[in-house]
Amino acid sequence: MFRSVSLRFLRKKIPTKGKIAVRNYTPRRALLYVPGDDKRKIHKAFGLDVDCIALDCEDGVAANQKAQARTTIREFLDIGKPKRTKAFDLGVRVNSIDSGLCHEDLVSCLTGRYLPDTVLLPKVESSEHLLWFADEISHLIRREDHINLIIYIESALAFVNLFDICRTVRQLSKRFSFEPVALVIGSDDLLANLGAMRTEDSKEILYARQKLVLAAKAYELQAIDMVYIKYKDLDGLKQQCEEGMRMGYTGKQVIHPGQVPVVQEAFLPTKAQLEWAEGLLQSFKEHQKTGKGAFSYKGSMIDMPTMKQAENIVKLGKLGK
Amino acid sequence: MFRSVSLRFLRKKIPTKGKIAVRNYTPRRALLYVPGDDKRKIHKAFGLDVDCIALDCEDGVAANQKAQARTTIREFLDIGKPKRTKAFDLGVRVNSIDSGLCHEDLVSCLTGRYLPDTVLLPKVESSEHLLWFADEISHLIRREDHINLIIYIESALAFVNLFDICRTVRQLSKRFSFEPVALVIGSDDLLANLGAMRTEDSKEILYARQKLVLAAKAYELQAIDMVYIKYKDLDGLKQQCEEGMRMGYTGKQVIHPGQVPVVQEAFLPTKAQLEWAEGLLQSFKEHQKTGKGAFSYKGSMIDMPTMKQAENIVKLGKLGK
Amino acid sequence: MFRSVSLRFLRKKIPTKGKIAVRNYTPRRALLYVPGDDKRKIHKAFGLDVDCIALDCEDGVAANQKAQARTTIREFLDIGKPKRTKAFDLGVRVNSIDSGLCHEDLVSCLTGRYLPDTVLLPKVESSEHLLWFADEISHLIRREDHINLIIYIESALAFVNLFDICRTVRQLSKRFSFEPVALVIGSDDLLANLGAMRTEDSKEILYARQKLVLAAKAYELQAIDMVYIKYKDLDGLKQQCEEGMRMGYTGKQVIHPGQVPVVQEAFLPTKAQLEWAEGLLQSFKEHQKTGKGAFSYKGSMIDMPTMKQAENIVKLGKLGK
Repeated sequence: MFRSVSLRFLRKKIPTKGKIAVRNYTPRRALLYVPGDDKRKIHKAFGLDVDCIALDCEDGVAANQKAQARTTIREFLDIGKPKRTKAFDLGVRVNSIDSGLCHEDLVSCLTGRYLPDTVLLPKVESSEHLLWFADEISHLIRREDHINLIIYIESALAFVNLFDICRTVRQLSKRFSFEPVALVIGSDDLLANLGAMRTEDSKEILYARQKLVLAAKAYELQAIDMVYIKYKDLDGLKQQCEEGMRMGYTGKQVIHPGQVPVVQEAFLPTKAQLEWAEGLLQSFKEHQKTGKGAFSYKGSMIDMPTMKQAENIVKLGKLGK
Repeated sequence: MFRSVSLRFLRKKIPTKGKIAVRNYTPRRALLYVPGDDKRKIHKAFGLDVDCIALDCEDGVAANQKAQARTTIREFLDIGKPKRTKAFDLGVRVNSIDSGLCHEDLVSCLTGRYLPDTVLLPKVESSEHLLWFADEISHLIRREDHINLIIYIESALAFVNLFDICRTVRQLSKRFSFEPVALVIGSDDLLANLGAMRTEDSKEILYARQKLVLAAKAYELQAIDMVYIKYKDLDGLKQQCEEGMRMGYTGKQVIHPGQVPVVQEAFLPTKAQLEWAEGLLQSFKEHQKTGKGAFSYKGSMIDMPTMKQAENIVKLGKLGK
Repeated sequence: MFRSVSLRFLRKKIPTKGKIAVRNYTPRRALLYVPGDDKRKIHKAFGLDVDCIALDCEDGVAANQKAQARTTIREFLDIGKPKRTKAFDLGVRVNSIDSGLCHEDLVSCLTGRYLPDTVLLPKVESSEHLLWFADEISHLIRREDHINLIIYIESALAFVNLFDICRTVRQLSKRFSFEPVALVIGSDDLLANLGAMRTEDSKEILYARQKLVLAAKAYELQAIDMVYIKYKDLDGLKQQCEEGMRMGYTGKQVIHPGQVPVVQEAFLPTKAQLEWAEGLLQSFKEHQKTGKGAFSYKGSMIDMPTMKQAENIVKLGKLGK
């Protein structure tokens, strides 16, 4: 009557011997926008200590400057990413699919001498948008190449379809040369779409902000928080960083270089998080020498995603030193 | 290798020449309930300056007065809507489908000399409810006639099925003679269903209240906020209006004529909203004379829904004068 | 042109004559965990006035004590549930399906002389988990036997899939020998999975906490609230009980015997709830003697779920006397 049951849907187990295969991790505590048509600002951004720079074709560029932005960005990409002490993520934010400008943006930024690390795709509202994007990528990038994808969720419809969007992008990424890495909440567009009004504690979009974190974590994506528009108010910025962090955000959009240090400091792991992560990795090392069976730490069974999280925290912690 | 891509799912573009086809817009800042069996109150309501009047067959009418309410409402409908300086929306709130009373209500109010503008359908919980309603409408209203539909979301199950309900009603409205125009949050029934307790800031139903706004905006419906039950407390009422407005609600249910002026004042557009909308329409006029290609305003690409929103704000603004 | 319409999806009507068939109701105001490998603590718990005891195989038991916990729990089950003045629910919390330990836990606790009342299944993340569980039950329990199932929702993915999980478990329970009775929010695991931080008012997981209540009520399950970890702070505990109650939670997880009386007192029905429920049942009795057609109370049409709710409130009220 009792049979042994095959646990087909067991979580990915941790190999008891050998190295853990952890996807290369780039923290994006601050995601800084720079207008794609402004050479001076791009040069300046390259000199900053910032985790992620988005060369912007979209909202930061006037309608009659779109072609100029494409050309300028392409020139920078053809030179190649500048060498810096600390690595950074170099992305291009293209125009939204529905704008009719996205195809030309992609052609321009993906057919040069070097690829950007990441494409940032605004106003994704449905699975169909991602199918369109995958189709573009299949024509523009060789199978053996690879880019990251950051998805903007910034309308009511996008939030309605959010879980579908995540499921679809995870499936598509298995067959196409892109890897989804983060979700961004576009709070200004969302507020406009809802006819809602910005308040200091953002209570009016609490549902949206927390739904995005859940979706991100469920599909192993980074959750990147809203812009703090009062760019001179660094105390307010810090508070909003911490508010987002408490919900699970690990990065924030930044519209001014002066916001970068505050944001990158705020999103460093706490001392307790660091201790937990370092202890876990240490304990795993010891377990690998002697242990058999499941690996547990402080009473919890540890699985692959948790191991990855610990590695990421330790890496992130090093940025603060 | 690079093909030109057909953007099949581009948003509806704005015609560069000619008039914009904007669906006739009725604001429903205040939605006032009047018991369907009370002639005196109905006469009184017709004399008020109120955006929307719902002649009630449901909660405002005792179980043994349901037939009386049907007869009375039918008499008023047969006379026709009273002439007033300001237009208003005249609706009938029927009993819920599950009550077993809805069919008779619909037969009574949809087969007279004149149709009401709107049917208000309480306790919609699933797509099946809407299929039932569409089937009724197909038998009661001629193809060339037309009514509006306002949907009540007021139970846990309804909130679970909310996005499905919206998708279904949008699809059905293409084939049947009704047009969904608004979602209403039935907070009292929801609280009872949840076993939750009303507090002053309604924190206990924040999830539901914000989910409804998202669904409404995603499917181009008006979001109508909860009843403020302490009908003598006009300051509290004003505060709750503003709280709802900040989330994106543009109207509110009203149970007493004394609440109407406060609510209709609170839901007028702000000065900033008016300026934005008037500027956008002005700019569009100029663009039509000279412009080619996409139309942008203050750095944003403008699409049809945004144009409609601007027109509605300007219309609404005129009510405040 | 007008036909009589068959209301196939009418809510279950109340029989006008005879007894109402109400599923046997066990309140679970406090759900107390006891480590399954600790005989002394189990004996002590059996002496407490507590609604529900969960003999724990999972987080309360160290990895190298899992076998010991199984043996100990089995011994207690073979003796049979202790006789007490007030009935209580005796459950076993097994390890999660993905841990690889769940099958042995189930075999051990479901094949003894007596069944526990309830199995508590942690870390349910998808419909597939429930299919696995149903398959286990079909091999371990005879068709004519029956256990309750309490489901833990404690990761981002579980919250993404929450409505699916509820739909699936309701369908499966029609064909298999288990009955879902409650959803539990595992807030500590959720916080860890989100990388979120605990604050006093739990604002960071408000979305999750309210989504769980909605799902529970939509599928007629009890909603059981988060653990209050500061077990010596009974004032804080009381406040968090009331906070949960206002959202619709009717029970709470408890990690220390000292928390039980505070929790069980807090989750008694209020005076107003009791009066409503007793009035409803009284009115129903009178209606049964004379009434025809629909049954209404205080102006509301009453359906089966509402009758059940009233009966449960009255039963619960008796516990406070």
